[in-house]
Amino acid sequence: MIGGGLRRHLRFIGRRVAALLAGGATAGLVLGVVEIGFAYSLQAFLAALGVLSLDAASLPSWLPRGGMRTALSLVAFFGVTRGLLQAVQNFLQSVTMEEAQLLQRSRILRWALHGESASSSRVASMFNQRAMVTASTIYSVQGLVVQLTVGALLAAALLAISPLVTLAAAAAMLLFAPLLLWADRRIKDVSADSIAHWDRTNSRLLMSIRNLLLLQICGMQAREEALAQDSLRSYVRKMYRFYTLTSMKMAAPQIAGPLLGCLIAVVSQRRGLMAPAALISYFYLFQRLIQAFTSVNQNMSALIFGLPHYRELFGWWSLAEEDPGSG
Amino acid sequence: MIGGGLRRHLRFIGRRVAALLAGGATAGLVLGVVEIGFAYSLQAFLAALGVLSLDAASLPSWLPRGGMRTALSLVAFFGVTRGLLQAVQNFLQSVTMEEAQLLQRSRILRWALHGESASSSRVASMFNQRAMVTASTIYSVQGLVVQLTVGALLAAALLAISPLVTLAAAAAMLLFAPLLLWADRRIKDVSADSIAHWDRTNSRLLMSIRNLLLLQICGMQAREEALAQDSLRSYVRKMYRFYTLTSMKMAAPQIAGPLLGCLIAVVSQRRGLMAPAALISYFYLFQRLIQAFTSVNQNMSALIFGLPHYRELFGWWSLAEEDPGSG
Repeated sequence: MIGGGLRRHLRFIGRRVAALLAGGATAGLVLGVVEIGFAYSLQAFLAALGVLSLDAASLPSWLPRGGMRTALSLVAFFGVTRGLLQAVQNFLQSVTMEEAQLLQRSRILRWALHGESASSSRVASMFNQRAMVTASTIYSVQGLVVQLTVGALLAAALLAISPLVTLAAAAAMLLFAPLLLWADRRIKDVSADSIAHWDRTNSRLLMSIRNLLLLQICGMQAREEALAQDSLRSYVRKMYRFYTLTSMKMAAPQIAGPLLGCLIAVVSQRRGLMAPAALISYFYLFQRLIQAFTSVNQNMSALIFGLPHYRELFGWWSLAEEDPGSG
Repeated sequence: MIGGGLRRHLRFIGRRVAALLAGGATAGLVLGVVEIGFAYSLQAFLAALGVLSLDAASLPSWLPRGGMRTALSLVAFFGVTRGLLQAVQNFLQSVTMEEAQLLQRSRILRWALHGESASSSRVASMFNQRAMVTASTIYSVQGLVVQLTVGALLAAALLAISPLVTLAAAAAMLLFAPLLLWADRRIKDVSADSIAHWDRTNSRLLMSIRNLLLLQICGMQAREEALAQDSLRSYVRKMYRFYTLTSMKMAAPQIAGPLLGCLIAVVSQRRGLMAPAALISYFYLFQRLIQAFTSVNQNMSALIFGLPHYRELFGWWSLAEEDPGSG
């Protein structure tokens, strides 16, 4: 799909960014486990308070048993760990993006100053927009890794509670696949078009400024401006399409989730597929799975949108055959 | 703090963006109400299933009573509405940002082409980074409006359940105020510095490209490159500071939230401040309030970071005394 082999891509993104990506993904994975632990602890706590009619069997076997004191320690432990990990993951993700931008911009700087000659509009476009979108593409890969693993963990927990119900729910979710695949294909087209429009706008603007005096003498500013404004507007129109598609992709599972959840609850109760006490864990984990699914979906959109930018910068780097530099 | 009067700022951001901001904020507010309705519906549903030992008194009086069928209709209604509103709000927010960028970029285009003369590095910096950060500053204002109102709604619900406990919890949260205020002041400094470094990098790069031949003749490329790389790195160092501060601000309430929640639960039960059945609603709403608080906090950081960018573009626009144009 992108070409060039994993090794080349690792050299392209740089050792530092790769390490940060791995660090952020690890923090995200641990966070996923802690989130599940936190959810069960809260249930144990509410059961200890006498609010939830939960029998011990509906809590996983690895969770320590005991009264209120045990439940409170669990909530405190998972709560504090979760808060810390969220902050760490947030920090690592932001820093990954910043470092990815730094490396690419630093390479663009060196290339622009040591190469034969470079068009300043091309450099400006690469230095600003291309480096930024490439960095956020790398960022969405990290999001994908984390959310897919958290999703797999949640799905495993759901399968453990009730294999039959989970497989039926998975089959129902699969009905959305064609819609999502169609949207992803459209996003790919929109992305390629938006690059073209952005570049055109940027190069027109910088070229006009360089030749401003000439344009003024010939009285062509108005025409030049109209052309630049047009391509700016075409770019925004493409972005509108992109947002329409991603919002639609976001809405589908969010709407289907609670409906499917209720359906599961009612059918399970009528047919006796699950004990009522197990149902509350199931319901909660199912909603979290839908969240993870939505997140995977959004990261996928961002990835598909960013890939042409990434590919272009990767292609430039491959051609320039720079040494990996500060990476 | 920014100066210039609300009317001038409305003209600066443009009528279209203002309308989108209002639309997005409205969708967000309705979403906040729907979120609360959804939470109560889920409780009613779980109570109807026999999983939650909830007496009718712990559900708000506006929620229709009845058996399983009523509860299911409520969950379905609020669930679908919530999904739709989330998608609409997401779309409106993205579009607001895109339109805000479009208007500013369109003005910069006109000014650059019709003005006396403009430095291309200044134009590139304004057209790319400044327009973008200004747009995301406008976006965080919208986030602030929505989250503050949702927070107020949640706080009112908590006060209705138990005024005493809620006031005590609010007092405990106030202990964080000095830390958050200190972080916000630091973010303000970091933002101003990051602008300076970014502009220096950008102008150095574009100037060097224009004078590339001269630089090569004098053998000064290496020196020029080192200077540009230095200011690029200084910019990234500032961004590291920014991310450290925002991650810290994010962690504090997230860690305090569950601990405070447990404390409330235990004290309430021991002293008989709340019925166990009311406690579960309280606990849930309290966690949502902490989320809203975290969100307000993050939007505030983004706003403080973006304000100097906004102010600079606003100052430029005020000087240029353009007509509000396409706004």
